[in-house]
Amino acid sequence: MGEFELIARHFTRAAPAGGAVVLGVGDDCALLQPTPGHQLAISSDMLVEGRHFFAGAEPEALGHKALAVNLSDLAAMGARPLGFTLALALPAADEAWLAPFARGLLALADAHACPLVGGDTTRGPLTISLTVFGEVLPGRVLRRDAARAGDDLWISGRTGEARLALALRRGEPWARGELAEVQERMDRPMPRLALGQALAATEGVRAALDVSDGLLGDLGHILKASGVGAEIELDALPLAPALRALDEEHRMECLLAGGDDYELLFTADASAHEAVRAVGQRAGVVVTRIGRLDAAPGVRVLDAQGREVAARPRGFDHFG
Amino acid sequence: MGEFELIARHFTRAAPAGGAVVLGVGDDCALLQPTPGHQLAISSDMLVEGRHFFAGAEPEALGHKALAVNLSDLAAMGARPLGFTLALALPAADEAWLAPFARGLLALADAHACPLVGGDTTRGPLTISLTVFGEVLPGRVLRRDAARAGDDLWISGRTGEARLALALRRGEPWARGELAEVQERMDRPMPRLALGQALAATEGVRAALDVSDGLLGDLGHILKASGVGAEIELDALPLAPALRALDEEHRMECLLAGGDDYELLFTADASAHEAVRAVGQRAGVVVTRIGRLDAAPGVRVLDAQGREVAARPRGFDHFG
Repeated sequence: MGEFELIARHFTRAAPAGGAVVLGVGDDCALLQPTPGHQLAISSDMLVEGRHFFAGAEPEALGHKALAVNLSDLAAMGARPLGFTLALALPAADEAWLAPFARGLLALADAHACPLVGGDTTRGPLTISLTVFGEVLPGRVLRRDAARAGDDLWISGRTGEARLALALRRGEPWARGELAEVQERMDRPMPRLALGQALAATEGVRAALDVSDGLLGDLGHILKASGVGAEIELDALPLAPALRALDEEHRMECLLAGGDDYELLFTADASAHEAVRAVGQRAGVVVTRIGRLDAAPGVRVLDAQGREVAARPRGFDHFG
Repeated sequence: MGEFELIARHFTRAAPAGGAVVLGVGDDCALLQPTPGHQLAISSDMLVEGRHFFAGAEPEALGHKALAVNLSDLAAMGARPLGFTLALALPAADEAWLAPFARGLLALADAHACPLVGGDTTRGPLTISLTVFGEVLPGRVLRRDAARAGDDLWISGRTGEARLALALRRGEPWARGELAEVQERMDRPMPRLALGQALAATEGVRAALDVSDGLLGDLGHILKASGVGAEIELDALPLAPALRALDEEHRMECLLAGGDDYELLFTADASAHEAVRAVGQRAGVVVTRIGRLDAAPGVRVLDAQGREVAARPRGFDHFG
């Protein structure tokens, strides 16, 4: 089966009626018609075998995750998805891999009305590169540079389980517990799209990003862009049951620097407290106030007595 | 130097004033503001080392070409560029490679007011994945499915030189001539953006695509999408001086099935003949009528006496 047939067979679908897609897969370009008055939000990610996922990773979960991590970026801006492109390098045109990969990818795409509109397929080391497009109303966007000293700091869901799953899979000696309990958090993250869009429409919500490289490292991006600092109340961080069995050092490592969480970290004026809680409830996602921003540069992690804990902010650096 | 610094150093630029970029590199998403009333045109391509370019290829030319082949897709729709994203996998964070690659990439981006707005950088086998965004007026778009029987068939520039350059570099025994004479056609294709936009605005111009996989193979996409056939007049095809020294078989192979040409192949009503010539002149690109479309399926290549030549239509299939 040739390249064109492969693409046609697994990745071509009729564009959903009433959506933004004027012209989908099959021409030199796809054509989208955004809603008048909106801006376009765009994000690209690349996943490389052996780096972002294990060689031999289950293709259906991989298809899901490849799109999920990109949709998470739209969620973090408060954008509504319009569509995405897929560039795919494959060692071989392997039907047994392509079919489940496309199934996982397109099931999540369907769930968020975000159709595949174009892309490229070629032979090469397994590499998945997606670009997603969404739309936002000007002024109703969650940017990293919009946080202010005095804002509350919030997180959706909870962090650390994906990191524990990775440790269990790798057999890291400190890891305790059942892989099955946390595996989904690593393999099938759910982008917080409804929450992000609702937050962007809520008065007093200011900055946001999605936590992909660890809470502290990603918080650093907001602080730097906004020129503020932060205090985190360690005991306020939502703690997954699976993390309770860990020693304190590795529990903190998972919570604060785990990576692969795909939760929304956001700031809001203190006056928006109740509105933020209500938005979380409507979106079906627990949101937790975990600290506040202040004018002093840097991050201070505080224990229950308000004493500073020695915590090492860290991001996952692919060239570190 | 870490991943974030690498990106910042080589790929971050201030967005050009007056452009569509509301927010560039550095947040979860880039934000673009298309011109009201326009549709968005999107194209993605992936280039893999050893497949689309030689290992050790000169990085400045590679940066140019990676963007050029994507801009060529915008040209083929008649779209005006707005910006692009870059996802890049690199074996190592090599300054000596990144600096010239970024220089070649951004020089072409600047020349077409198409800023880099976001992307991703990771470690992995050298892979370059770009997504470009442009805008078009609804109804002023060159689609593959708009050709009609009776249309003239046109080509911009000339085909075959990139294929000859490849053969000379590989030392294929039939290749004749100096690599230096044709190398630029392979290494630094120039996307026909001005021509494409002018054609899209010209009454009677119908379908178009860019020739990347060989003239006959790509023509097949227009014919299939539009439900028509075509006659090509072999003697009408513009012949590059460098191709004259080849034997007839390989000259035809270069002209009709070469690949990597990045010329526009388009159809227009016969009444638009003079308008198309004038558009070519204003855009500074030779445009040549090379045949016509008819209702009989398939492609017939005719010699000077109108006799059919045995020609093997072929596309470059990465999994063939």
